[in-house]
Amino acid sequence: MAKSKVNIKDVAVQAEVHPSTVSRVMNPATRSMVSTSVADRILRIADEMGYARSPLASGLRTGKSYTIGVIIPDLSNPVFPPVVRGIERTLGAQGYIAILADSDNNQKSERAIFESMKSRQIDGLILATAHIEEPIVQDCIAEELPVVLVNRTTDKHNVNEVINNDDLGIGLAVSHIVGLGHRRIAFLGGPQNTSTGRNRYLAFLNLGNRGDFDLDPDLCVNCESFTESAGHAGMQQILARNKLFTAVVAANDLLALGCYDALADCGLSCPDDVSVTGFNDMPFVDRLSPPLTSIHIQHDELGVQASRLLLEKILNPGAPRETICLDPELVVRESTAAPARNS
Amino acid sequence: MAKSKVNIKDVAVQAEVHPSTVSRVMNPATRSMVSTSVADRILRIADEMGYARSPLASGLRTGKSYTIGVIIPDLSNPVFPPVVRGIERTLGAQGYIAILADSDNNQKSERAIFESMKSRQIDGLILATAHIEEPIVQDCIAEELPVVLVNRTTDKHNVNEVINNDDLGIGLAVSHIVGLGHRRIAFLGGPQNTSTGRNRYLAFLNLGNRGDFDLDPDLCVNCESFTESAGHAGMQQILARNKLFTAVVAANDLLALGCYDALADCGLSCPDDVSVTGFNDMPFVDRLSPPLTSIHIQHDELGVQASRLLLEKILNPGAPRETICLDPELVVRESTAAPARNS
Repeated sequence: MAKSKVNIKDVAVQAEVHPSTVSRVMNPATRSMVSTSVADRILRIADEMGYARSPLASGLRTGKSYTIGVIIPDLSNPVFPPVVRGIERTLGAQGYIAILADSDNNQKSERAIFESMKSRQIDGLILATAHIEEPIVQDCIAEELPVVLVNRTTDKHNVNEVINNDDLGIGLAVSHIVGLGHRRIAFLGGPQNTSTGRNRYLAFLNLGNRGDFDLDPDLCVNCESFTESAGHAGMQQILARNKLFTAVVAANDLLALGCYDALADCGLSCPDDVSVTGFNDMPFVDRLSPPLTSIHIQHDELGVQASRLLLEKILNPGAPRETICLDPELVVRESTAAPARNS
Repeated sequence: MAKSKVNIKDVAVQAEVHPSTVSRVMNPATRSMVSTSVADRILRIADEMGYARSPLASGLRTGKSYTIGVIIPDLSNPVFPPVVRGIERTLGAQGYIAILADSDNNQKSERAIFESMKSRQIDGLILATAHIEEPIVQDCIAEELPVVLVNRTTDKHNVNEVINNDDLGIGLAVSHIVGLGHRRIAFLGGPQNTSTGRNRYLAFLNLGNRGDFDLDPDLCVNCESFTESAGHAGMQQILARNKLFTAVVAANDLLALGCYDALADCGLSCPDDVSVTGFNDMPFVDRLSPPLTSIHIQHDELGVQASRLLLEKILNPGAPRETICLDPELVVRESTAAPARNS
């Protein structure tokens, strides 16, 4: 391991200030407590002397590690990298680093990663893997570990969260499809133990019950995971029921990709035979064959706001709990069209 | 931060062994030093007592953090998530955790991330961002921090590395294109300060100089980064030179996507007017319009082998340096076809 030869006291002596002042200046999160002119002088001296702050060493004094755990369900889902970029940029600007881990959609892995992160003394956690019943969130509360949920949330809404307006998103997808003239609309949903899976399904049911289209329970399947293979299997189930439909609303883009595959298996063409909408507007869906009509969520802003709420909670544990709900937008591409005449 | 109430001595008393035996058993990396029956008994007792090993606490004793830094150039490039999965799985099985960071193709960021990781006492580093001249590698050597290069390497080859056989890969792409009947072949390369950028370009030049096709320097452009936008700009440069070509060999898939865009701007169709090959066979290229012919690299194996070499180096600093070179394969899809008759 690298050793830093110059310590905080050396810098303090040279700058003729108390070591605690150097400490405040070296930590971006507390730098504003010192006047700009003093801070600039100390930073210059520290730089000249080759002093580098050790978060671990200062963590032993302050009980802080300046390390934030980030758990995401599936790194190979292209929706997450831009969220992670927003997180890394926002945390980095405040002197924090992210420990990123991918749970591979597995609750046992999430628990193992969480324990491992805790044992590394993380100062807080950003969780993109929340289930509606989420023991990890309860543990964070019990152990007073600051936590922010991003993209998904729980039923209790008892911690900070940054989520998407899923009702609005499904509403936009359905209005678009109905506006094109579709009435027989299938729904390919996500796991019902996640808020995104459940809320997007309930939003679809509400619109059907309101009479926006012909709601048919046989045309609704909720998949076991938000993956291409689960979407493929789910769409096969719907097709096997042999009921007429001319459009599919999918609860995320990977499910929509699986839907593309299942339709192709049957020789059905999108959008000529069946229109398809996704959700998330993940990178690359504009390049698919056909380019996917999707609901654009604010990827970067999800990461930025989650980091901001977490840092606020770390600096001020008594701050009031917040829910930030971001509005998505419809992006129309070539996977949706009017239904064929003979449908 | 979470506190563990049961400590290693409590477990040792209960198990009637020395605390150092418990320590060895609790660390997956040293567990095999203790007989299986004793290890199993200690693990059971530790579990019953609710003891969890603290890597940070044991790090203070052993000087180890069980934390590995992983720096990748671009998390939004879908080639990296499957490499990272291989890394996380292999490290996790040995009780290590990865701190993952994305440098956004920026050498200044790489340096900042490296310093931040070092100050968190990482036990080793996996670097996917190496440049041909790479000061970070020299720093690792000077500071005796174990490091492994993955995907890209330096000119010095003085640390462990897991790379692809870029010569073979470009050879496969060119043979395929030439086999279809193309003679006028453009090359869209990557940054020449990276081994992947330089070696893929040199491989292309070698084949042209050997007479495999009509090599024309006006048809070769090396882009500033391995991104879609750089590929778009590079292809526009080639097109502006107004020279005949019927195929493009791109040095990675994102460059090939930028090439798709530039061709579409000019109303050129792929593969009818111009065939295109990529490199990496990243996820989703099979779903593009048109599906991309690419060179498949062993994503998971890159991560597995890099982790293996790093852990070997950590456990045995005197182990000989190794280069592991993985062979890629050609995957033919719909972006390549015979040249049109009138070309």
